[in-house]
Amino acid sequence: MIDLNYPSGLKKKLTTKNETLNKKIQYKNRGMALEDDINLSNQYYINIEKAFIYKKPTPIKLVKVDYKKGRIDEAYFAMPSTTDYNGIYNEKYIDFEAKETINEKGFPLVNIHKHQIQHLRNIQKAKGICFLIVRFTSKNITYLLMANDFLDYIDNHNKSVIPITYFQEKGYVIKDKFMPRIDYLEIIDKMECEKNEKKRKERKEK
Amino acid sequence: MIDLNYPSGLKKKLTTKNETLNKKIQYKNRGMALEDDINLSNQYYINIEKAFIYKKPTPIKLVKVDYKKGRIDEAYFAMPSTTDYNGIYNEKYIDFEAKETINEKGFPLVNIHKHQIQHLRNIQKAKGICFLIVRFTSKNITYLLMANDFLDYIDNHNKSVIPITYFQEKGYVIKDKFMPRIDYLEIIDKMECEKNEKKRKERKEK
Repeated sequence: MIDLNYPSGLKKKLTTKNETLNKKIQYKNRGMALEDDINLSNQYYINIEKAFIYKKPTPIKLVKVDYKKGRIDEAYFAMPSTTDYNGIYNEKYIDFEAKETINEKGFPLVNIHKHQIQHLRNIQKAKGICFLIVRFTSKNITYLLMANDFLDYIDNHNKSVIPITYFQEKGYVIKDKFMPRIDYLEIIDKMECEKNEKKRKERKEK
Repeated sequence: MIDLNYPSGLKKKLTTKNETLNKKIQYKNRGMALEDDINLSNQYYINIEKAFIYKKPTPIKLVKVDYKKGRIDEAYFAMPSTTDYNGIYNEKYIDFEAKETINEKGFPLVNIHKHQIQHLRNIQKAKGICFLIVRFTSKNITYLLMANDFLDYIDNHNKSVIPITYFQEKGYVIKDKFMPRIDYLEIIDKMECEKNEKKRKERKEK
């Protein structure tokens, strides 16, 4: 694993394919990074043809390329303009960002860029299913927070950290499983169910 | 613009942001690469909040990184496992690949990797809207070919090139416009309209 300083000063962990494989062997069920958990879960969803969701490659700004050898000799990490993951599930467009934090009290908003917040607003408006997956590593707990709740918080609080209590109140805990490790679609299913139930009730009342 | 030899031996043109800007100024309406045309059209769709469709970054395999400087010192282009473009339009998942060919008689299938074909099959099954945009540069004509027609061809013909006559028969010509330059969603609209019309007729007949 390579620990990188992004141009923005943000730190992010990147793994190459071989390193991911090594980690799978070494770590087995525990201690894997959130990104690996999600990638494995997405691969599981693809295998059973449940959903087709992929992580977008990290954007790179090329500076020097040896085009005869197909080799990049100088490049820099660029700021992503969208979230990292998107795809299709149940005929619906899915879009999310995943982040880990070592902060025990909350989720520092510095982890999400301005462009990504605007992207979440856009997808929300366009009626895509969009959310954040946030892991509090010190507590080893992973939440799914819908984009509308996330945006609601930042629009109504002038704070740089979303307190963990907000995740407890509005988010959904994603429990660790064997397969898929991070079954976030289970939560999406539950929420869609609740939404449909609500609609049915509203229709009855009319 | 940097002309690159991919590990697979495929050639692909990559542009950095500054080069794209320079090209915009230099080239004005003519001679722009298909990728630039599509990126500008997508940006236009985003600006008018019609659709949110993005090109995925080119996947890179990192080999050597100076993590203090956030600089990549050695990396290689990797094979993409999905198509290049995806996003949301009209609450639907959109997914496509765009390619240019100088071949006058047809579209060489070497341009689309095995993984990408499988991806198109998956998205087709999952009921996403998926297609190819192919530009025949020698004729300066751009076609949209739906994935089902593309897959239909390769499943029923043991050929390495899809003849241009197949695009004439099954594809839709995307006319050059000022804004958006490549209005491919106009064709998707038209097809959705036709589909709904067909459904309505079928219902009436019952």
